Amino acid sequence: MNLIFLYHLLVLFATAAFAASAILSVSKHNIDTFAAIVLGVITAIGGGTIRDVILGVPIFWAVDQSYVWVALIVSFLTYIISKFFQKRSSKKNLHLSVLYLDGFGAALFAISTTRHVWNLNFCLPLGPIMLGVVTAIGGGLMRDALVGQRTLLMSREIYTILILFGCILFLILQYFFPQYTGIISILCICLIFVTRSAAIYWKISMPHWIEYCVAKVYGKKIS
Amino acid sequence: MNLIFLYHLLVLFATAAFAASAILSVSKHNIDTFAAIVLGVITAIGGGTIRDVILGVPIFWAVDQSYVWVALIVSFLTYIISKFFQKRSSKKNLHLSVLYLDGFGAALFAISTTRHVWNLNFCLPLGPIMLGVVTAIGGGLMRDALVGQRTLLMSREIYTILILFGCILFLILQYFFPQYTGIISILCICLIFVTRSAAIYWKISMPHWIEYCVAKVYGKKIS
Amino acid sequence: MNLIFLYHLLVLFATAAFAASAILSVSKHNIDTFAAIVLGVITAIGGGTIRDVILGVPIFWAVDQSYVWVALIVSFLTYIISKFFQKRSSKKNLHLSVLYLDGFGAALFAISTTRHVWNLNFCLPLGPIMLGVVTAIGGGLMRDALVGQRTLLMSREIYTILILFGCILFLILQYFFPQYTGIISILCICLIFVTRSAAIYWKISMPHWIEYCVAKVYGKKIS
Repeated sequence: MNLIFLYHLLVLFATAAFAASAILSVSKHNIDTFAAIVLGVITAIGGGTIRDVILGVPIFWAVDQSYVWVALIVSFLTYIISKFFQKRSSKKNLHLSVLYLDGFGAALFAISTTRHVWNLNFCLPLGPIMLGVVTAIGGGLMRDALVGQRTLLMSREIYTILILFGCILFLILQYFFPQYTGIISILCICLIFVTRSAAIYWKISMPHWIEYCVAKVYGKKIS
Repeated sequence: MNLIFLYHLLVLFATAAFAASAILSVSKHNIDTFAAIVLGVITAIGGGTIRDVILGVPIFWAVDQSYVWVALIVSFLTYIISKFFQKRSSKKNLHLSVLYLDGFGAALFAISTTRHVWNLNFCLPLGPIMLGVVTAIGGGLMRDALVGQRTLLMSREIYTILILFGCILFLILQYFFPQYTGIISILCICLIFVTRSAAIYWKISMPHWIEYCVAKVYGKKIS
Repeated sequence: MNLIFLYHLLVLFATAAFAASAILSVSKHNIDTFAAIVLGVITAIGGGTIRDVILGVPIFWAVDQSYVWVALIVSFLTYIISKFFQKRSSKKNLHLSVLYLDGFGAALFAISTTRHVWNLNFCLPLGPIMLGVVTAIGGGLMRDALVGQRTLLMSREIYTILILFGCILFLILQYFFPQYTGIISILCICLIFVTRSAAIYWKISMPHWIEYCVAKVYGKKIS
């Protein structure tokens, strides 16, 4: 089994994780099976589609349809399975484990896009970072806007900022050690995944930094 | 009158139906004439725009502006007319008849896109189906997200699933009987339109299949 | 200092105004610094991105990254500053002055896009007008959909209609006096900016024209 095949498998796995987490996120609404699957597929391939449109290259799922198939099948299975989890505790465990998988998927999508755009020499240095973030969160944002629920950006969740710092770190390391691309990629993916897992595990949300400073300056207590 | 001209007329008619149904859908909000027309045009040409961006071809309304003119004029007229329908019963009748027209428009857009993408040999077999669905519902989804109302996907309406099955049926028939493209197109459009009309007429919404199965498995009654 | 440099400075200024007004618009929600900056950047470059995707040309911020840098820095500074404005009256003044700047930015984006698309000879006569409006309001619409707040189109604000009439006027004057492009551009930008400022200053919103006519026809009093 060579490296390219392993990489392809990992990206398919990340696509599946995105689809599954989308289904769990929307299935609490009174939504029918078919609409849930549509939203699962949009979440899984939406970010990459925006990336490819901005890059002006053929859309990735038109070149290799396996991503859409995986998103379709995983969405369907997750919808069915989620309905059979009746106990609140088992539902919660399912949701939690998928959250971790989703964090891994976002890390993989972000870093592999950053690397790809760097290799294309597109709009350095901001391009790879912006498209890395868009690929990781674009699909989820489209889903939330279509479902009408609060988007990721409004939730104070520690998610996008980790992806951003991971992409920036990748660019810096890539610039100084271009010969170790593989190791740097794995390092950055692990870093995003571990910090995201910590944020999920300890339920950490974005601190109110600015509010603290403002209160300090004005000598007030923070309510 | 040759066939291409007739086809062009039909697509213009479908564009008009989309614009009119969009106006009726948003005019219950306290919206001004001009914003309503903008939303009418977005609904009418939005789906096709997404399709052409994904295909990487020139946008259809940039090639032939008659679609935009029709959407503009029909949006304006529908807005004016809808305001003059004061009685509740006549409002309801107007809304119902436009719903049927909208169903016809969606069927026509979906199948003609599926056929077009099939001829382009783009991402077979999933591409034609995905783009058929996107062309038919994309504009409406953009409208609902901009208006802030519940999108089509959240409403359990029998709409998208008919378009999907129509597109799949078209692909299967097209594969086995490539010489009868014209007849197959008409057949699939009629099938989507008739089933959609039935769903409107008898007010059928998506059944809770999975919930029934879950209840059966757990031996519970359905609430 | 030549004209092209001055024009570039003005567009950067308009980008900054868009970013600042976006930050003030979202910072009343309980949003973290980082997400606010993402929304500021999306608002500032979103409309132009849609325009370039539809035109099928390289995205403007990939060609010249200064737009993204300006949007990033201005978003960050505005977020910090807005938090330090504690008094209600000073907050209101800040918001008002940014509203005027935003109006200038929209006017500049709309007319410069209309002129650019006219020069490309793209989809005349509707193309330049549609893309002018999209460039001016597209970023703000994306922001509002992501934030989940009422979009510009639903607010009866006098904003989009001024941009539309400005673009139409530009096209007409440009058609009859092609040799005075520069003067016509400045005239149309000033016209949009002045009328928009008047609408902000006197808090004018879109009148209920159609409702008045309907009431007249039916001989009723307007509630």
